[in-house]
Amino acid sequence: MTQKAPRTAIQPTRAQDYAEWYQQVVRAADLAENSAVRGCMVIKPWGYAIWENIERVLDRMFKETGHKNAYFPLFIPKSFLEKEAAHVEGFAKECAVVTHHRLVAGPNGGLIPDPKAELEEPLIVRPTSETIIGASFAQWVKSYRDLPLLINQWANVVRWELRTRLFLRTTEFLWQEGHTAHATETEAREETLKMLDVYSVFAEQYMAIPVIRGPKTASERFPGAVDTFAIEALMQDRKALQAGTSHFLGQKFAEASGIKFLDATGTQNFAWTTSWGVSTRLVGGLIMTHSDDDGLVLPPRIAPAHVVIWPVYRGDETKEAISVVIDEAARALRAASFEDRRLEVEVDRRDNSGGDKQWEWIKKGVPLRIEVGPRDLAAGTALVSRRDLGPAGKQAIPFAELAARVPELLAQMQSDMFARALAERDAHTHAIDDRAAFDAFFTPRNPNKPEIHGGLALSHWCGSANCESTLKDALKVTIRCIPSYGIAGAKAAARINEPGHCIVCGEPSTMRVVFAKSY
Amino acid sequence: MTQKAPRTAIQPTRAQDYAEWYQQVVRAADLAENSAVRGCMVIKPWGYAIWENIERVLDRMFKETGHKNAYFPLFIPKSFLEKEAAHVEGFAKECAVVTHHRLVAGPNGGLIPDPKAELEEPLIVRPTSETIIGASFAQWVKSYRDLPLLINQWANVVRWELRTRLFLRTTEFLWQEGHTAHATETEAREETLKMLDVYSVFAEQYMAIPVIRGPKTASERFPGAVDTFAIEALMQDRKALQAGTSHFLGQKFAEASGIKFLDATGTQNFAWTTSWGVSTRLVGGLIMTHSDDDGLVLPPRIAPAHVVIWPVYRGDETKEAISVVIDEAARALRAASFEDRRLEVEVDRRDNSGGDKQWEWIKKGVPLRIEVGPRDLAAGTALVSRRDLGPAGKQAIPFAELAARVPELLAQMQSDMFARALAERDAHTHAIDDRAAFDAFFTPRNPNKPEIHGGLALSHWCGSANCESTLKDALKVTIRCIPSYGIAGAKAAARINEPGHCIVCGEPSTMRVVFAKSY
Repeated sequence: MTQKAPRTAIQPTRAQDYAEWYQQVVRAADLAENSAVRGCMVIKPWGYAIWENIERVLDRMFKETGHKNAYFPLFIPKSFLEKEAAHVEGFAKECAVVTHHRLVAGPNGGLIPDPKAELEEPLIVRPTSETIIGASFAQWVKSYRDLPLLINQWANVVRWELRTRLFLRTTEFLWQEGHTAHATETEAREETLKMLDVYSVFAEQYMAIPVIRGPKTASERFPGAVDTFAIEALMQDRKALQAGTSHFLGQKFAEASGIKFLDATGTQNFAWTTSWGVSTRLVGGLIMTHSDDDGLVLPPRIAPAHVVIWPVYRGDETKEAISVVIDEAARALRAASFEDRRLEVEVDRRDNSGGDKQWEWIKKGVPLRIEVGPRDLAAGTALVSRRDLGPAGKQAIPFAELAARVPELLAQMQSDMFARALAERDAHTHAIDDRAAFDAFFTPRNPNKPEIHGGLALSHWCGSANCESTLKDALKVTIRCIPSYGIAGAKAAARINEPGHCIVCGEPSTMRVVFAKSY
Repeated sequence: MTQKAPRTAIQPTRAQDYAEWYQQVVRAADLAENSAVRGCMVIKPWGYAIWENIERVLDRMFKETGHKNAYFPLFIPKSFLEKEAAHVEGFAKECAVVTHHRLVAGPNGGLIPDPKAELEEPLIVRPTSETIIGASFAQWVKSYRDLPLLINQWANVVRWELRTRLFLRTTEFLWQEGHTAHATETEAREETLKMLDVYSVFAEQYMAIPVIRGPKTASERFPGAVDTFAIEALMQDRKALQAGTSHFLGQKFAEASGIKFLDATGTQNFAWTTSWGVSTRLVGGLIMTHSDDDGLVLPPRIAPAHVVIWPVYRGDETKEAISVVIDEAARALRAASFEDRRLEVEVDRRDNSGGDKQWEWIKKGVPLRIEVGPRDLAAGTALVSRRDLGPAGKQAIPFAELAARVPELLAQMQSDMFARALAERDAHTHAIDDRAAFDAFFTPRNPNKPEIHGGLALSHWCGSANCESTLKDALKVTIRCIPSYGIAGAKAAARINEPGHCIVCGEPSTMRVVFAKSY
């Protein structure tokens, strides 16, 4: 009855061709696809449902920390982007520019931008909204009583990217951008770190992605920021992925936008602002942290469905009875909860073979698969498979116990997935003090074919941009962050604060930083 | 202690200057404001929270009717818009056209669109997504087994509008657009009406806005649609507002996009498609249906907060005790529910006077206001005011009963608001068979100053576009819909299906249609 399974459901495997494996996982799980518009993706229902879960949880966390949602214009006048010098430099270049507001019939029958409808000032499709939100803040903030102003926006943004990859780097993507204004530097810095903390908790407890937190070096900062903090995760090809950023903007953007307030003594001051964001890139990080050579593996807290259940028919005599059992099981499961959500249960009654179904749901990464066939019916049990375990993880569970056991299995799976990802990161995190060893660590074994290599190198750095760029130019290795909160995982953690000497120039250094290749 | 209240909190009143009253209600409730970008609004937290509630409820209703969310590109290649002739005519004209993908330093120091980065094909910022979603559907649909395909998207869209009004007509707005494909005409028509029904239920049961449902005439159809159905509501200035539309697109868009499938007999067919949407315009409809001369009035099921509670201090001796009571009341209320949501309770401890607070929350439209002062404390009761009732509606409720009574008051307010809006519509709905009476009905009494006049005229129409445009040209009156589901409200309902003669040409007519001026 079952189809002959290929050696792995995803071809090629990670080891054979990691980049192509990634594309195939996205395709096999039906998450997203390229569109007719260069660099813009279509997020398909299963992929969008993951994003909806991310949005739901983060939105709650933002509201619990006092933020309110609002919505600002998609378009940014060109002159706004010109206001903050460093910001221009970083963002104004590759962007979608609206120059006309009408199409008319052209000489060859098609439509052309109407020459009579050229905009006086071009509009930029927002690549980020500091400047347009700053203009509103400048009007909203008059007195210290109006502060702090804690705003978040869920939106689409556009950055004209040359090389795109689904979820990881696309011309248009979905994100949230928090923007806050404060009366003091201390408060704004606290906010920056508070939101970094929210991101860390979310990544680790919901996405089961272990992250390292800390400030970026000057060269890796957000254009115009005083300090940029990031959460960084290690993917299975041992490249780092920046999964979220939180920026302390000092008074620079307040000065550019005119966000001023009267303090309690009657003095006019510029506000201190922050911004912070995560995007649909998180879905790419999820895929690359947890998926295996059979496809996507979803952490239960973020999975669109926790459980899929289907009947396995052999002949007609037990069909009716199995169908009844499936209905009852689905009903009982849907009345149960896992963490903050009712169990989401898919019932798959399609005609195709059990083998096809099994592989389809494996590739889609549903945490638990439940089958009920004639033998199960006779035994009064359902066959339950955890997506993150092999066939050895299958277990028969009595029908009456399903609603109680499934949340337990999901909780176990969630924590196992985090532990596995953490162990994987730990296994590829090394303190490296020798330049030759550093170079070797970041050099593919077989230079003819890109392969999985490297990891996180905890190495000393003197603090100079020069030494930093030397490594970037030579090895495409960058400082992912200064691990100011330490790094979980015993081996690595112990050696962060050792003093030493810069891996490039040999000058003294007080602590190690995290080097890696990255997305 | 209370400030001397102005005669009305909103100046001018509805009767004095309706259009300006609307702007002032939006401003006083802090819902939205104009931005630096022509025609684009900033939706402020209180306004956005209303939209979030609309989104939450509709999203659940869409999912319960089998739809899944997805996300499609913001940009539409110009050639896509050129595919469906009627669609081009209706949509391709006033739109935001992206022609360049880079800015560079210009000769005068500022930034200019880089002449070297002109797009080969201009991109249009989506005014609606039939064509770009159609391109995906064409790839997703191969066989009748792939149908029906039931997709919804929450997104921003842009239509370059010359005259804009916050929420009612803006260049960028937020909406949802449902897009579905079906194997048969019957199924697609059923879907069109099913979603019209979802919109009606939502408008009436959640927004407390009574609506009339029915098909549009040919001249009012969505560009390219075979049939357009709408829900229409009557505003307080007696103009109609189209609050949602559902389109049966026949096979036109499937042909334009190539959405084909093999049916069970192995024959290739074009699919039958639908689309349907509501937008942030609904917030404008909400404001104009329920607000009064003191500002916004929010139906409890859609209000961002159900209740606001504040202490009224007189001297210091009872301050502590009142504060404790307020905390306890807020806790008890937050543990209670109204309909499908926990009670949302704002506690306002700001220093400003009780009078200022009261008027601020009145203008923001919070359904219930609760005050606790020294006398209330002594009596063991809180003073509860319903936003939709005057001072006579205030009542003292014992602290211990608040959590039980508040949901009851909210339920009563919700149904009273609907009943009041329905009575208002009914009072301004008239069967008119005489052209002179029709003209008089739609003519302002004082031609020097626009004023509240007119309403819904149920009049006979022969079916000719000519008679329709005669009235549009003469009076700016259009046929809002053919009320195929009847109209609630006894007086009007009885006379819809009477036969008669066209109000313009006198030819025979089998039923009345709904004429009105409109937004």
